[in-house]
Amino acid sequence: MKRITIVGTGLIGASIGLALKASGFAGTILGWDANATELATAQQLGAIDEALPSREAVLAAQADVTVLATPVMAILDWMERLAPVPGEGRLVTDVGSTKREIAHLAEKLFNAPGRATFLPGHPMAGKESGGASLADATLFHNATWIFTPISTAAATSAQNNAVQAWYGTVSSFGAQVRELTPERHDEICAWVSHLPQMVSTALAALLADEFPAAAPEPGSPHAAEIEGVGGRALREMTRLGASPYSMWRDVALTNTEPIAQALAALEQRLAHLRENLRTPDLREEIKTANHFRDRSR
Amino acid sequence: MKRITIVGTGLIGASIGLALKASGFAGTILGWDANATELATAQQLGAIDEALPSREAVLAAQADVTVLATPVMAILDWMERLAPVPGEGRLVTDVGSTKREIAHLAEKLFNAPGRATFLPGHPMAGKESGGASLADATLFHNATWIFTPISTAAATSAQNNAVQAWYGTVSSFGAQVRELTPERHDEICAWVSHLPQMVSTALAALLADEFPAAAPEPGSPHAAEIEGVGGRALREMTRLGASPYSMWRDVALTNTEPIAQALAALEQRLAHLRENLRTPDLREEIKTANHFRDRSR
Repeated sequence: MKRITIVGTGLIGASIGLALKASGFAGTILGWDANATELATAQQLGAIDEALPSREAVLAAQADVTVLATPVMAILDWMERLAPVPGEGRLVTDVGSTKREIAHLAEKLFNAPGRATFLPGHPMAGKESGGASLADATLFHNATWIFTPISTAAATSAQNNAVQAWYGTVSSFGAQVRELTPERHDEICAWVSHLPQMVSTALAALLADEFPAAAPEPGSPHAAEIEGVGGRALREMTRLGASPYSMWRDVALTNTEPIAQALAALEQRLAHLRENLRTPDLREEIKTANHFRDRSR
Repeated sequence: MKRITIVGTGLIGASIGLALKASGFAGTILGWDANATELATAQQLGAIDEALPSREAVLAAQADVTVLATPVMAILDWMERLAPVPGEGRLVTDVGSTKREIAHLAEKLFNAPGRATFLPGHPMAGKESGGASLADATLFHNATWIFTPISTAAATSAQNNAVQAWYGTVSSFGAQVRELTPERHDEICAWVSHLPQMVSTALAALLADEFPAAAPEPGSPHAAEIEGVGGRALREMTRLGASPYSMWRDVALTNTEPIAQALAALEQRLAHLRENLRTPDLREEIKTANHFRDRSR
């Protein structure tokens, strides 16, 4: 690998650039972001060596590895643009939050003779806020980096080598490589990532409406009443509610059914708790929750 | 105040003892806990000067201030025991998580001529885990300490003075005193404390069942699949699921209706999100959640 292009130089994209440098990558890192500020910040931090001037320049760059680090719908768009660029042995990989639609499109567009290899990926890493300014060379240290590789019987050795080389690269970041099918990835993430996100959003939105900034009439509930009351527990349970729409819209659009099933299951569970606030079933629920936490330590 | 008895020397009770010492209290602090280990730890840490040998000794001690720092049902039991002990000018206060039932009982049993004054209180402070070993003199620094005082037209000046003296004491811990009605306290806490608790419990219990430690059949979901996938978001959203049954049973028993209403509202909100994963309403929910977080900073 001599030339790597990072498309989307936000938190994850810029952190990949910094991790590449930290792990000794001696080639050139090119970057592109639709947001000129993010792109400039990534360059200032040294996450990329060169800021590309346009989308066309990304295609013309013909990098050995192109990393798509945007929200999912933009990844799908970039896949359509990049597929016609010739490049057997070149690798295109992504870091999108859902994998089924990406893997499905990759099977249609890539991994054919004369075409680049596509390797769907998802590093389980992040921070409270996004943006290139928070980029960190150690972000992937000890993180699980899931891949949902496309199985093509006709894969050439150049294509297989490109995948193995990228596995080696993310391992050099300190990440643990794990392979899953795209379907199982999306189901698991619906439960342990998308469901917590939706719950935090619903809780924050509900409390915003229940305690509006200004009381609609004297004595009715308002924001000042809960200041200093919720504490750390409330902050933690609503923190994910600060996440941006742009990212979660794409997750909801590309993993609708698994998320809907997880939400429906939680609604039932909450109703069960509600109906058993005064029965021994409350003890069972709390013991089961305690057990989950004990084993998650 | 020369003699203070702390009943229940867990995290909150022992922290009150340490905060009293740190703020210069020169009298004697007596302590009692049904759990001998907690009591011994509190004494070793210097949170109490003397460990009382029995419940009867608590009554015989006739302290100027008795602080009830147990779960709510045990507080109600202690109120029944302490009420007959004569002591106009003496203060009994508590730190229980719900206030309606405690304030209601206090009106019946205390604040009458010849009887002690009862001041229902609730410091909004805690830690991830409980227990005397985590006690901290600074636990109440900058915390809101809510009181739901009993209004009795016949209150004597000795009774009023006892209340004001305790307000001064918790202020010396660095806490902010706020007065609420017990009803409003319980409603607010249902939304910002008990609801997040129940949601975290339901989420943790659901995931424990969905991903059991051992897969019931080959290939079915199991715990190892989600290791390293959920990350910080999942840990935060399930942390409260580690809370002990003993405490939350009492909260659920003494604040059932407000908690049930908050749970029902969240169930509706989750159903709304579920039905709108692909519509513009998702944007509205996320924007509202973002707004709640912005103003909570």
